[in-house]
Amino acid sequence: MPPAALWRSLRAHQVYGANTDVGKTIVSTLLCNALQGSVGFIKPVSTGPLDEADDRHIQRYAPHTLTKCLFQFDEPVSPHIAAAQKSVPPPSDTALLTAIHETLTTWAQPSPQEQARKHALLETAGGVHSPGPNGTSQADLYRPLRLPVILIADARLGGISASISAYESLVLRGYDVHAVLLFKDDYYQNHAYLRSFFAKKAIPLVAVPAPPARVAAPEEDGEAMSAYYARARREGVLGGVVEQLEEMHVRRWERLDAMAEKAERVIWYPFTQHLGLKAGDITVVDSACGDFFQSRSSRKDGDGDTAGLRATFDGSASWWTQGLGHGNPDLALSAAYAAGRYGHVMFPGNIHEPALALAETLLESQANPRLQRVFYTDNGSTGMEVAVKMGLRAACARYGWDAGRETVRILGLKGSYHGDTIGVMDCSEPSTFNKKVEWYRGRGFWFDFPQVRMKDGVWRVAMPQETALAEEMDELRFGELTDVFDLEARLDSEAGRRYREYIRRTIERLVQEEGVKFGALIMEPVILGAGGMLFCDPLFQRCLADVVRQTPELFAPQTTPAGENDWSGLPIIFDEVFTGLYRLGRRSAASFLQVHPDIAVNAKLLTGGLVPLCTTLASEAIFQAFLSPDKSDALLHGHSYTAHAVGCQVAVDSLRTMMRMEREGSWQGFQRDWAVAAAAPAAAAPAGPLTWSVWSHGLVRDLSQAASVEGVFALGTVLSIALHDQHGTGGYTSTAAQGLQHRLAAGGDQFAVHSRVLGNVLYLMSSVTSKAESLRAIEEVLRGALL
Amino acid sequence: MPPAALWRSLRAHQVYGANTDVGKTIVSTLLCNALQGSVGFIKPVSTGPLDEADDRHIQRYAPHTLTKCLFQFDEPVSPHIAAAQKSVPPPSDTALLTAIHETLTTWAQPSPQEQARKHALLETAGGVHSPGPNGTSQADLYRPLRLPVILIADARLGGISASISAYESLVLRGYDVHAVLLFKDDYYQNHAYLRSFFAKKAIPLVAVPAPPARVAAPEEDGEAMSAYYARARREGVLGGVVEQLEEMHVRRWERLDAMAEKAERVIWYPFTQHLGLKAGDITVVDSACGDFFQSRSSRKDGDGDTAGLRATFDGSASWWTQGLGHGNPDLALSAAYAAGRYGHVMFPGNIHEPALALAETLLESQANPRLQRVFYTDNGSTGMEVAVKMGLRAACARYGWDAGRETVRILGLKGSYHGDTIGVMDCSEPSTFNKKVEWYRGRGFWFDFPQVRMKDGVWRVAMPQETALAEEMDELRFGELTDVFDLEARLDSEAGRRYREYIRRTIERLVQEEGVKFGALIMEPVILGAGGMLFCDPLFQRCLADVVRQTPELFAPQTTPAGENDWSGLPIIFDEVFTGLYRLGRRSAASFLQVHPDIAVNAKLLTGGLVPLCTTLASEAIFQAFLSPDKSDALLHGHSYTAHAVGCQVAVDSLRTMMRMEREGSWQGFQRDWAVAAAAPAAAAPAGPLTWSVWSHGLVRDLSQAASVEGVFALGTVLSIALHDQHGTGGYTSTAAQGLQHRLAAGGDQFAVHSRVLGNVLYLMSSVTSKAESLRAIEEVLRGALL
Repeated sequence: MPPAALWRSLRAHQVYGANTDVGKTIVSTLLCNALQGSVGFIKPVSTGPLDEADDRHIQRYAPHTLTKCLFQFDEPVSPHIAAAQKSVPPPSDTALLTAIHETLTTWAQPSPQEQARKHALLETAGGVHSPGPNGTSQADLYRPLRLPVILIADARLGGISASISAYESLVLRGYDVHAVLLFKDDYYQNHAYLRSFFAKKAIPLVAVPAPPARVAAPEEDGEAMSAYYARARREGVLGGVVEQLEEMHVRRWERLDAMAEKAERVIWYPFTQHLGLKAGDITVVDSACGDFFQSRSSRKDGDGDTAGLRATFDGSASWWTQGLGHGNPDLALSAAYAAGRYGHVMFPGNIHEPALALAETLLESQANPRLQRVFYTDNGSTGMEVAVKMGLRAACARYGWDAGRETVRILGLKGSYHGDTIGVMDCSEPSTFNKKVEWYRGRGFWFDFPQVRMKDGVWRVAMPQETALAEEMDELRFGELTDVFDLEARLDSEAGRRYREYIRRTIERLVQEEGVKFGALIMEPVILGAGGMLFCDPLFQRCLADVVRQTPELFAPQTTPAGENDWSGLPIIFDEVFTGLYRLGRRSAASFLQVHPDIAVNAKLLTGGLVPLCTTLASEAIFQAFLSPDKSDALLHGHSYTAHAVGCQVAVDSLRTMMRMEREGSWQGFQRDWAVAAAAPAAAAPAGPLTWSVWSHGLVRDLSQAASVEGVFALGTVLSIALHDQHGTGGYTSTAAQGLQHRLAAGGDQFAVHSRVLGNVLYLMSSVTSKAESLRAIEEVLRGALL
Repeated sequence: MPPAALWRSLRAHQVYGANTDVGKTIVSTLLCNALQGSVGFIKPVSTGPLDEADDRHIQRYAPHTLTKCLFQFDEPVSPHIAAAQKSVPPPSDTALLTAIHETLTTWAQPSPQEQARKHALLETAGGVHSPGPNGTSQADLYRPLRLPVILIADARLGGISASISAYESLVLRGYDVHAVLLFKDDYYQNHAYLRSFFAKKAIPLVAVPAPPARVAAPEEDGEAMSAYYARARREGVLGGVVEQLEEMHVRRWERLDAMAEKAERVIWYPFTQHLGLKAGDITVVDSACGDFFQSRSSRKDGDGDTAGLRATFDGSASWWTQGLGHGNPDLALSAAYAAGRYGHVMFPGNIHEPALALAETLLESQANPRLQRVFYTDNGSTGMEVAVKMGLRAACARYGWDAGRETVRILGLKGSYHGDTIGVMDCSEPSTFNKKVEWYRGRGFWFDFPQVRMKDGVWRVAMPQETALAEEMDELRFGELTDVFDLEARLDSEAGRRYREYIRRTIERLVQEEGVKFGALIMEPVILGAGGMLFCDPLFQRCLADVVRQTPELFAPQTTPAGENDWSGLPIIFDEVFTGLYRLGRRSAASFLQVHPDIAVNAKLLTGGLVPLCTTLASEAIFQAFLSPDKSDALLHGHSYTAHAVGCQVAVDSLRTMMRMEREGSWQGFQRDWAVAAAAPAAAAPAGPLTWSVWSHGLVRDLSQAASVEGVFALGTVLSIALHDQHGTGGYTSTAAQGLQHRLAAGGDQFAVHSRVLGNVLYLMSSVTSKAESLRAIEEVLRGALL
């Protein structure tokens, strides 16, 4: 896929019609005649008899124009039908885009003779949504190039509607419409209505004289057209629109050139040390499409004129949020629908369809009989604050503790991270992330835990240093990742027995000897994200949940849970903000542990990667701890935009899309890669739920052999590579992974790779719609950098 | 404005065409013929010769149909042009909607003879965006009724594009398209492509045979059409679509009837005591438009069939968020544009246009030379957490305090509220809101303060009880609200002197005698929202800021600020989440105090009322406290969707719209009402910036005389009425205002009024686009209830 199309020396526009037969080619001819300097005209796909073809028209009436028609079909029908009638298959959408981009690139090369601006018009066929040769709507097909648009409006009866709808279809795909042109028709006066409509959008509109009526005799027709164009040129019918287009081009470049510097002056970036940050360190993202950012290229223009934008793989899935691709028109329409139907509706006391549908869909997706209630907030941090409030209240209520007088703490894992608000910062042990926050006061105990990674082709579980486990046990080894997750077998193993014993004894010591009160167990199941992509031995997390639930007397004198789905020992909170909703290949990472949490928090992928939204799911038993005749016993938490319709609608549609992809086996190719490897040599499919990754099994094995690699793992959409750290012990402030990050950022010919590092760990993350070919191309870059 | 249109016994659809001349009326005739039971057909506006009028066509070929044409224009041009040519002015949009709603309501009345379903089709003119008689696009014009749509697609060349674009224009206005019908054309085969397109949206599509070509002789033409319809009926060309439409109607009602109960089972509502909450307490909001929710009417259907939906004025502005009206198509398109252009782009290290443009626009709008940097988060609570982190860090850095070892506190006002996350809960004094939150630990000192309200026609400032101020001073009295805000005059008054002295002495005692360390001053300027709509004497807040800044030695041994815009004494944080961005009639409530805060937080109105977003603006001096060679000194805060493009784009467009409204004098009517009153009897405009409200000056004065009213005030879009509390001292748990709330909820004939109460205070809040006529109608309801 080529990058978005932008050059400094070449001003290129895409000409879209509000409908078929609105005069795109005639207006294009007018434009070609009015442009100074060299002008190119591309008709990617043309239908209809060859002698009427639009590029021929241009050649005849704007003869100085360089024209190029990439594909020609004789029948005057939609290209997708014409293509179907041809014996030769049409070019793929990618091939078409590539051919266009290459043509424009060639035209954009400056020549010593010409210093003036060059121009190009790319003329589409029919209306904005008329299908291309493969059936893709043109508005979608050409979106990756995101050329600014000249919209030819419809001057006929009904044309006001057609023109505005076409405009809206373009806008909701992120196009910028730079000008609207149409024929002047004094009877219908569409131009008057549309001029006032587009003036409000600051888009210039020009009404040009209508061409002469077509006559049968070709010669006469030709003369009339020549006279029309000559007169149009004489009279300057385009008004100032050519100058306005030029000004927009210049302004766009000026803005692109200035944005990094302006951002450096006014933006305060999250998680960013601004000392030493230069404008050059800031990437200007002009747009994004699928897995790729389209960014202002850092390559110097110099005397050549290379592309102004470069495609960069969004290798952090934009902080782990992306699911269905950037610039997804379906999600854009979902968002617009909810905005148009509701805007925002204040939530307490009200219900609307998107909020209810999302609650129902989510509860169904989690298949956890404990989870019965949905509480909405705006992001993982606030959702975890709610989870903590829920858990602590339930525990204090059952155990009769007065939390205002003594601190009730949480039980967790070292390296956990639950968000940036101070309440949930207190749920993590002191670390780089929180130790300099003035009001941070860690309130918990955090277990160090055995970690999983592959090294030298073997999956290894290393015991945490300076713990009883490390004293008692050696590293565990497994042939395949499915074996690590085979909890059925592992629960009764020696490791299981020792884990449980270690956990039980530790809690006993804390509670009975040190008098600590615990109010909740909080875990990110399987992978602890922000803490450094730490892959916890699932058996350890399972044992921790088992011990908490099976020996409630550890925490307080026995109180019997009320029912089967009531919490026992402590409310168990799973922070699935990062791990949930297919990030690790499954709807819920809890299924890896076969533990049903009492409270579960989801965000990030929830909205498919579009807008903030978070859900905290809770069991009925937790909910009941807040029931009382006293209003102030209620969960007094709620943000203004709680359950905003836009977020809920986008989330419903994202979740249903991802669930449909799962049902339809969209990831079978990836799954086969891991299943075959796991089942070798018997080649039978492994039993139980799938454990797989979009990153290839072979890549993980190969990287694990690299000398510079300390360990590696892949699960679902996540690939994590820990590098040997010459200078330290890893951790957030390590710089070991930066070299690799820079090599990825340099990228290959086709695209660069954006990645994030956490200390000595570099991770890559795809969306659930990423294409195997993109992923394999990135794997090649990785192999080149590490092997 | 009538409510949205829905009846149980009447199934009504709106017929939209993908373009003009696609066969709307012919397909409507087919539908009328296929429907069992009584069928009504409304053509609100018809253009073209009378004998061709669509309702005549229906009368002729589907003679059992009840037809009604509300307005007829002879010229076959767009209605807005036809209307302009007529000497009689066209009906207003509201009149048109009212006429339609009344007609449908009449048709919906059940009659003893007829038990079967009734049907109605409302046929539009031209395409979806063809203008109505007043120039409003039909898709916008008819949106308040939000009838489900039957879209007649375009079977001609270019029709695929026209049909999909028309569909998208409808969806982004929140319409539900229930079926797509079009003529079958085997050459262009649009039906095949569109069937597959709409199947993905679960929308049925039926291709019906094309009608015979029109012939000149009217009689022949009539015969051919009769034969066409007869054959169509015989062959059942509509397939199962009539049954599908019926099923959708039934399902919609089933869902509406069930939603409250389902919500009661799965939703955990914010700030809601669920004990005793019944399904009947939950309002089902089917859609929203402008200032009104369209809710499932609670009126019993009984044997009559009253409207299924009722309009309810969103009197809390949906928790203070609404600015530009619900279902605003411009904001929906803004959201869609950003979604289509970017989706979400992870923020650190990147910049995109919406985030930069919003930062620039906001900084400009605040006109505060101190504010130089913009930090993005998701809601007021997280934005205030950031503000607190900023303030504390700056103070600790300058004063050399180790906040990990001793608690640094904030200075604030009693009754303040800054959000629901635990860190900012700690910024408020112990109260109902936080005292039961297990981890809440208030960390501050909170001044009680003089409050402003009108009683018996006089603006009164009451001194806080049990303070030195109450001992020293009597109630202050003012004739007009502008006098209260005349700080120029009041600063040198006795009150000013006493305020400053009281504040200085209190701080001195806390710091010097009790050893308290303060790290920031936090205030909601002018009105403390969630704490109970407390209107603080602006002079007191001004004096508090002045004392902090002018006597920095109160807080620590003197350290000189670095420059003119550096903070002094304490960083001053203004929580403008509620008060900012025109909520109180001005861009910033800080302007009432003439204080430039060092940190300012905005949310709620920021996005015009669509999606969550928050900005924390900070001065360069605050920013510099985080600069260091050590990465961990950075502000380590950042949510996944930080500066999400959708939110930023919507915010830019909202803010620019509101600023344009200010520039264009959109609120002059309201302003005149207050200015004239203030300047009476001289009738000259008062000097200085305006102090005004959308609520009328006369209403406030009259309510202040009511025996049941303790006090009242209005400012900007806010009206607050404190009621006498028989049983207690007011506060959050008071029930004094509930009676008034119930009376408003019962409402009048036209609409109900949703309001929120805070203890004994009932407030109403409009958006900035609310129409005077709506507001005056509500005022009548208020007068009826209180006077």
